[in-house]
Amino acid sequence: MKGRFPMLRLYDYLPSGNGYKVRLLLTQLGIEFERVELDIVKGETRTPEFLGKFPNGRIPAVEFDDGRRLFESNALLWYFAEGTPFLPAARMERAEVLQWFCFEQYSHEPNIASLRYLVSHPELQDPRRALLDRMLRLGHEALAVMERHLGSREWFVGSHYSIADIALYAYTHVAHEGGYDLAGYPAIRRWLERVRGEPRHIAITDQCGAAASR
Amino acid sequence: MKGRFPMLRLYDYLPSGNGYKVRLLLTQLGIEFERVELDIVKGETRTPEFLGKFPNGRIPAVEFDDGRRLFESNALLWYFAEGTPFLPAARMERAEVLQWFCFEQYSHEPNIASLRYLVSHPELQDPRRALLDRMLRLGHEALAVMERHLGSREWFVGSHYSIADIALYAYTHVAHEGGYDLAGYPAIRRWLERVRGEPRHIAITDQCGAAASR
Repeated sequence: MKGRFPMLRLYDYLPSGNGYKVRLLLTQLGIEFERVELDIVKGETRTPEFLGKFPNGRIPAVEFDDGRRLFESNALLWYFAEGTPFLPAARMERAEVLQWFCFEQYSHEPNIASLRYLVSHPELQDPRRALLDRMLRLGHEALAVMERHLGSREWFVGSHYSIADIALYAYTHVAHEGGYDLAGYPAIRRWLERVRGEPRHIAITDQCGAAASR
Repeated sequence: MKGRFPMLRLYDYLPSGNGYKVRLLLTQLGIEFERVELDIVKGETRTPEFLGKFPNGRIPAVEFDDGRRLFESNALLWYFAEGTPFLPAARMERAEVLQWFCFEQYSHEPNIASLRYLVSHPELQDPRRALLDRMLRLGHEALAVMERHLGSREWFVGSHYSIADIALYAYTHVAHEGGYDLAGYPAIRRWLERVRGEPRHIAITDQCGAAASR
C-alpha cells in the first residue's frame, strides 16, 4: 500500500453512486476514513456551514486533518488512486481515464443516475420529470457506447481494473433502479461481474470497509 | 516548449466552447494541428464513420498520426498540458484542477452552454426548452460558486493560469449569449480580463494559431 493519509472525513450519502465511488476506492486501498452521512434529499448539503466548506454543496467531499478540502467524486478518485495500480502510469492511459470520467459525468450520470433518483423519490417535484423519455434515451445511448467499448476488452482503460471502471460501475450496476434493462448489454453485464469479483469489493449500501476482510 | 506531438487532427466546431478549450491550449502551447470542422447541428458527428472512430459522437476529438484517438475536451486539455506550466505539478493542485473540470462538466456546461445553444438555435425542437428557467437558475448557482472562489484569488488553482481556467473560461465568457448577465459577478469579470490578457490568447471564433504571433 503506497501512501498514508492524515485522518480523512468523507461527507457521504449512502444511496449515492458518487459517494460510493470514493467509499469503494478507499476501502480497496485500505485507507481509513470517518464517514459523515448527509441526506441530500433533506438539503443537508445546502446548509450555510457545509456551503462554507464546499461551495458546490454536493457530496462526496473530503476534509483532511490539516483543513484541506476537495470535492467532486472523480477528482477524489484520481487524488487517492495516484501512485497506486488503480491509476495507470502511462500518459495516454491516464488521459483515457479522464476521457471516461468526463463521459461518465456528462453523458452517463445526468441520465442514468438522475432517472434512478427521480424514480426513487416520486414525492419530489422536479421539472426534469418532463424529460424522462429523453433521459432514458440518452442513458441507453451512453450504455451503447460502453457496450461497444467493452465488446473487445475487459476493462475501460488498459488491461487492468482502474478508477475508470469504478467511476462507471457506480451508477451502471444500479441502472435497473431507474428503469434501465441491461438485458441487451451482455458485455456490460460481464464487466459488472468482473468488477464485483475484484478484491475488497463492497456493495453500494456498505458504509465502508465492512467487507474489506472478506 | 516541452514535448512535440505527431501531426494532430482536431475534430472541432467553431462555435463550441468545448472545441475552443483545446484550440486555445494548443495555440498557447505552440502545437500545430489540422482542424476538421464538423457541424454538430447538421449531425456531422453522428455519421457511422465518425462514430466508428469516436463512439460518443462529440467534438472535440483528436486523432494522432499513429491512429490513437482521444475525446472529451477536458481529457484533451489534461493530455496536452501534462509537463507544461498549464498543469500544476503538486498532487493536491492537480486534484483541484480535476475538481473544477468535473464542476465545469456537471454544474456549469449543461446549464450555461446548453442555454446558449438553445438560444442560438431557436429553430431546433428540444425538450430542454421546458426547463429553461431551471437551467438559468442552476447556471447562476454555478456562477455564484465561481464568484466566491475568485473573490480571494486570481486563478482557479494555485497562483497561475492553468487548464482549470481554460475549461471554465470557454463558456463563461460567452454566457451572455445564453441570457446570463454577469454584472453581479465582478470577480468573474476581472478573471475573464486576466484570461484574455494571457500570451497567445485567441478568441473563440479564431480557427487556431491566427493570433499566436500577436
